[in-house]
Amino acid sequence: MPHLVILYTPQIEHQTDMSALCRRLADTMLTVKDDAGAQVFPTGGTRVLAYPAAHHATTDGSGDHAFCYLNLRMGRGRSAAVHQRAGEALVATAREHFAPLLASRPIGLTLQIDKGPEVFDGKFGNLHPLFARP
Amino acid sequence: MPHLVILYTPQIEHQTDMSALCRRLADTMLTVKDDAGAQVFPTGGTRVLAYPAAHHATTDGSGDHAFCYLNLRMGRGRSAAVHQRAGEALVATAREHFAPLLASRPIGLTLQIDKGPEVFDGKFGNLHPLFARP
Amino acid sequence: MPHLVILYTPQIEHQTDMSALCRRLADTMLTVKDDAGAQVFPTGGTRVLAYPAAHHATTDGSGDHAFCYLNLRMGRGRSAAVHQRAGEALVATAREHFAPLLASRPIGLTLQIDKGPEVFDGKFGNLHPLFARP
Repeated sequence: MPHLVILYTPQIEHQTDMSALCRRLADTMLTVKDDAGAQVFPTGGTRVLAYPAAHHATTDGSGDHAFCYLNLRMGRGRSAAVHQRAGEALVATAREHFAPLLASRPIGLTLQIDKGPEVFDGKFGNLHPLFARP
Repeated sequence: MPHLVILYTPQIEHQTDMSALCRRLADTMLTVKDDAGAQVFPTGGTRVLAYPAAHHATTDGSGDHAFCYLNLRMGRGRSAAVHQRAGEALVATAREHFAPLLASRPIGLTLQIDKGPEVFDGKFGNLHPLFARP
Repeated sequence: MPHLVILYTPQIEHQTDMSALCRRLADTMLTVKDDAGAQVFPTGGTRVLAYPAAHHATTDGSGDHAFCYLNLRMGRGRSAAVHQRAGEALVATAREHFAPLLASRPIGLTLQIDKGPEVFDGKFGNLHPLFARP
């Protein structure tokens, strides 16, 4: 944790650079600060994964309507102000990335942040020590 | 919001038309009414995305057991009667679509509706105005 | 229900056998017992689905940092002890599977269990009777 998962309709695959969007969103996550000015999302735990759908249907089918849904799952214990700050920063980044598409085609965009409802949480990788704060 | 995401084992990819299933489910979503008779799911926000798994394992591995999981995430503030109505309508559509498969192969089917637990919700696309109610 | 969904960065696709991981995790799920010694996850409802991302970004981009996220969604009504037991069993299996990768490359691994927040739950497949307990 945290992770951002992007689900999207595949017709935009060659109309925008989704790998670049992933990188920009990860970079944005790393800039979010808590109320004391400390980094909210640990560098070693930050990841963005994007998945074009194999099949899809949108709206009433009356046009070539694309969709991109962005979901950030984060740990519990953060204030509403942090949620708001993270959401606004990510929307700003996504809005900038999608500006050319928004100007040229119909596309729905939603970004949501969930507080994870986990009842078990196990971490057993080796990344965090690489980014340990001094 | 709302969106319906379908996760399935890939052996059914060429045994049924998943794109047609997506369209039928989106059409079904658009027919669901609230207690006052108004459309529950806004046309401009309705989307269905389907994803075959790259790898999978099912049951105890004793046979070629397929699975298809359908998850509708919808906004908060709807009554239990609306959840029930939406769920029953979608199950009816999926059951009809999968009838030939249910008659010819082992397959597990689950449809769940979640009320989204989001702590931030940003929409910034351009689809809704296309479907504004007069 | 239950299902385990695995989301991962695609550079590990050819460094480890994800199909084997799915099978091992499903087998592990089938061994989990409740406080009375009964099987927690019904055989006919157990499935594991794995999805490599099409695009991704991890950490601060300073290296080839892989991630694998494992999420088990299970029904409500189980004790915290069952959650803990299931989580520890699955982490042990995944840790063993990933041991060669953990020894040879940077990789983040997280396994979480969620109690499903569903407001509607429909099952309409034909698998459960195949595994009915005598």
